Amino acid sequence: MCQLLGMNCNVPTDICFSFEGFSARGGKTDDHKDGWGIAFFEGKGCRIFMDAQSSVNSQIADFVRKYPIHSTHVIAHIRKATQGEIILENCHPFRRELWGRYWVFAHNGDLKDFDLPFMDFYEPVGNTDSEKAFCLILESLRQQFPMVKPPLEALFPILKRITDRIAKHGIFNYLLTDGEHFFAHGSTKLCYIVRKAPFAAAHLIDEDVTVDFNELTRPKDRVAVIATTPLTDNEVWTQIQPGELLTFLDGEPVKGF
Amino acid sequence: MCQLLGMNCNVPTDICFSFEGFSARGGKTDDHKDGWGIAFFEGKGCRIFMDAQSSVNSQIADFVRKYPIHSTHVIAHIRKATQGEIILENCHPFRRELWGRYWVFAHNGDLKDFDLPFMDFYEPVGNTDSEKAFCLILESLRQQFPMVKPPLEALFPILKRITDRIAKHGIFNYLLTDGEHFFAHGSTKLCYIVRKAPFAAAHLIDEDVTVDFNELTRPKDRVAVIATTPLTDNEVWTQIQPGELLTFLDGEPVKGF
Repeated sequence: MCQLLGMNCNVPTDICFSFEGFSARGGKTDDHKDGWGIAFFEGKGCRIFMDAQSSVNSQIADFVRKYPIHSTHVIAHIRKATQGEIILENCHPFRRELWGRYWVFAHNGDLKDFDLPFMDFYEPVGNTDSEKAFCLILESLRQQFPMVKPPLEALFPILKRITDRIAKHGIFNYLLTDGEHFFAHGSTKLCYIVRKAPFAAAHLIDEDVTVDFNELTRPKDRVAVIATTPLTDNEVWTQIQPGELLTFLDGEPVKGF
Repeated sequence: MCQLLGMNCNVPTDICFSFEGFSARGGKTDDHKDGWGIAFFEGKGCRIFMDAQSSVNSQIADFVRKYPIHSTHVIAHIRKATQGEIILENCHPFRRELWGRYWVFAHNGDLKDFDLPFMDFYEPVGNTDSEKAFCLILESLRQQFPMVKPPLEALFPILKRITDRIAKHGIFNYLLTDGEHFFAHGSTKLCYIVRKAPFAAAHLIDEDVTVDFNELTRPKDRVAVIATTPLTDNEVWTQIQPGELLTFLDGEPVKGF
């Protein structure tokens, strides 16, 4: 199994605090040490840092912990391999292009007896169940909407349908974003918190670090953090229910989806 | 205009020496300061570091200069914007998937009156002539060979044909690789050197740094370095001729292509 961390905000924000606690689980406070990765959107642009080493020992992870990159859409992953070797092409998050936008995906879980049908557009590079699932999601969206990204009302039901179909094969917690919408699907374990005014101090579970967001934010800032398990021990995190697909936009869940 | 740096080797090698000289051109010894990027293949896996800042000021570039990543296929680029804003999605190298492999591309030059035809598979995310050209190359290869990567004898003439067609629009020096074959196309300025036994010391043009490869290599190592202009002042670099498309494999140009 693996662990997921996501962030969606209404203004570009750095994820150093959350990533510090999260990346400690990659070999220090937990044993997800078979690689890690993190994707940052900046506008339509997207960059990914990754390593097949554990996030605790990776010098690149060390750099990411210390270097604040401001982004509105972030997806991070630490891997405990269940399917696929411990090599770079099997590290999450994965990225492909659809409708002239980059899409980024990371998965926590395990899919059994999951084979891809014939695919017109997308093909996995590595050999994980996760990358297969990502390719099938994009393929399904593209078959349904060949030319341009549809409005969320049209996109959401198709995404939900293919998600439900894939989820029949096992555990399928995932994060997915194109730098505009941010999707989080709960299967067994995924939770979130929305930080907004009035801001308070937060204390990490995995490291003895406290940040007072009141000192770092402006009144209109809004930040949603999504993670496999809570990252802080003095805040209330909301569980995403099994089978629930949430859409985050500008730092909070979109109502009605 | 921009500058290109590529490396293809028969054993994973770090590019720190060449990148040190090359990245100095991103604002110190030359004025290519509108972003930079570098892609490393490790097997079929590929990671890209990039920044819309100059390579001289970028903390990420500083990290890459110091942290040796061993790779057999590397493409780096420093940008001096001619088309497209100075934003992350316009930074090279670009990456897409074709035939279950990542393909990476960087371009030096300027293409005029270059519009894409209708595309089935690939669409640019940014708005540079370079990403358009990359998408058209992959589209052409995929239309010709829909299912699997063909042998080099079949792939090369199709790549050459689409390259010639695009090159009619202006200056089109490029580097392209899928982690197996490494292509370098000369239009105005591109040169290369193959380092193999007996190895000697090399001295950078852009920084006063010397490396004695004799101390760092084994007798069977072979490394081709491709760059817009020579990076060292005590070695003989070979110019790639205008219109010439070279294929590198295991650290040297493949004969007969």
